[in-house]
Amino acid sequence: MSTSTSALAIEKQMAPENEIQQVELLNGVEDLHGGIILDMEKPMDSEVFASLLRASISQWKQQGRRAVWIKLPIELVNLVEPTVKEGFRYHHAEPDYLMVVNWISSSSNTLPENASHRVGVGAFVMNDKREVLVVQEKNGKFKGSGVWKFPTGVVSEGEDISMAAIREVKEETGIDTEFVEILAFRQSHKSFFKKSDLLFVCMLRAHSFDIQKQDVEIEAAQWMSLDDYAAQPFIQKHDAFSSVAKVCLTKLEKEYAGFSPIPTTTASGKTSYLYFNTRDFNKL
Amino acid sequence: MSTSTSALAIEKQMAPENEIQQVELLNGVEDLHGGIILDMEKPMDSEVFASLLRASISQWKQQGRRAVWIKLPIELVNLVEPTVKEGFRYHHAEPDYLMVVNWISSSSNTLPENASHRVGVGAFVMNDKREVLVVQEKNGKFKGSGVWKFPTGVVSEGEDISMAAIREVKEETGIDTEFVEILAFRQSHKSFFKKSDLLFVCMLRAHSFDIQKQDVEIEAAQWMSLDDYAAQPFIQKHDAFSSVAKVCLTKLEKEYAGFSPIPTTTASGKTSYLYFNTRDFNKL
Repeated sequence: MSTSTSALAIEKQMAPENEIQQVELLNGVEDLHGGIILDMEKPMDSEVFASLLRASISQWKQQGRRAVWIKLPIELVNLVEPTVKEGFRYHHAEPDYLMVVNWISSSSNTLPENASHRVGVGAFVMNDKREVLVVQEKNGKFKGSGVWKFPTGVVSEGEDISMAAIREVKEETGIDTEFVEILAFRQSHKSFFKKSDLLFVCMLRAHSFDIQKQDVEIEAAQWMSLDDYAAQPFIQKHDAFSSVAKVCLTKLEKEYAGFSPIPTTTASGKTSYLYFNTRDFNKL
Repeated sequence: MSTSTSALAIEKQMAPENEIQQVELLNGVEDLHGGIILDMEKPMDSEVFASLLRASISQWKQQGRRAVWIKLPIELVNLVEPTVKEGFRYHHAEPDYLMVVNWISSSSNTLPENASHRVGVGAFVMNDKREVLVVQEKNGKFKGSGVWKFPTGVVSEGEDISMAAIREVKEETGIDTEFVEILAFRQSHKSFFKKSDLLFVCMLRAHSFDIQKQDVEIEAAQWMSLDDYAAQPFIQKHDAFSSVAKVCLTKLEKEYAGFSPIPTTTASGKTSYLYFNTRDFNKL
């Protein structure tokens, strides 16, 4: 089996009578788990595709392949229906493509799960007057409630949590900050369709103090006494919020060690951040 | 606009001359962000659907709606192509459905991002002889390498991190454990297509000691001296692994506080776990 990434290839098979047949097959690359990945790039008639797919799957089964992945760019939406009719299921989708997969082995299905969590940041930013940076949002569940909350946002694809916190504070309030540490995090389920959320409470040190709020999402932004923030009835009423406020107060008043990001190199040579309690790690 | 969830409804509109017209429109529910969500349940001809969709979008635009979401069960795969031709983009997919979305407002696009991270657990399980529970896997990048590693696994949809760690250890090795705390976590990018990973290093206390390995995924499992584990050349060579081993050694030898899960109640009444340094939080 060739592993070139061209969409199509002609392979010759020996028939039992040594007669040479030409069989067109779809061409993919092998993965580390006994699967084949097809990256469809060129337009194709959906009936031609269905016929090639059937012949290819038959051959891959003979070769002992366990799974077939097909990445379908949104421009090739005409190929979605034929793949589903051949037994494929959806795996994941991004705005510009759909990934489908078919477990073709009789062994038990070990397909990896789809991304299951959105990752968010909540930024705890103090100035030198014991005041915390807070905002009111124009949309979402806090709209019109009058509740002052920490700037929050979603970590973008491929973005480090610490960088996301700095970016969100800058975007929403214009304040420049330095990342200090993660004080806490919360895992919530079914927060967005059936997906879960991980929200990291990040402590940041302010390097500028003049607020310039962003107008699209933010109704108002201000520096507010941390005690006044914590005393808001909404915060007091919901312990998911009051507990975070208490952790932040603890950080200011006592020795409290969160997790700090340390760059490490993985086996594949990539840099990734390991977050841990560096204070306890380094003390003798 | 009715908010019933039936797939179709007849609405009557008043024409300028007070003449009554019957206009068929698709029917959805409003979300909190000025959007409409259609949950397609019944089979429909794709051309009829395209025509209804065009008429409905025209009306939603007049009503000032900003976004239209359509959930298409895999059985209704024939409706995917017409939605894309009407300007919809993919948002996310699970094995049995595809969610598409169309931003129909002239204001700037504030559509929420898709889930971006898979969440994994690595389990640091000690027995009372200063030995750590380790495994060799049958598949994946460590296959055949001889490297002994912590049991690891992916957090399932809707599952708490602490529960996932207990479940994975039980599944892979048969060992019963109790969750202690999260010692560290690592964020990696582009680990699975373009998605990121968050791997939580969880410390667990073993309540049983006789290993019964799972045969499908696990080649071998044993108790191993923590020092021997850390001394493996592969672990030494990659600081993403050696740093975790050092954090685990620190936990055994010194005062090291990780993050412990504390149940909290959110504004919507759900229980979610807040993880933080409870030792520093509680000390006077």
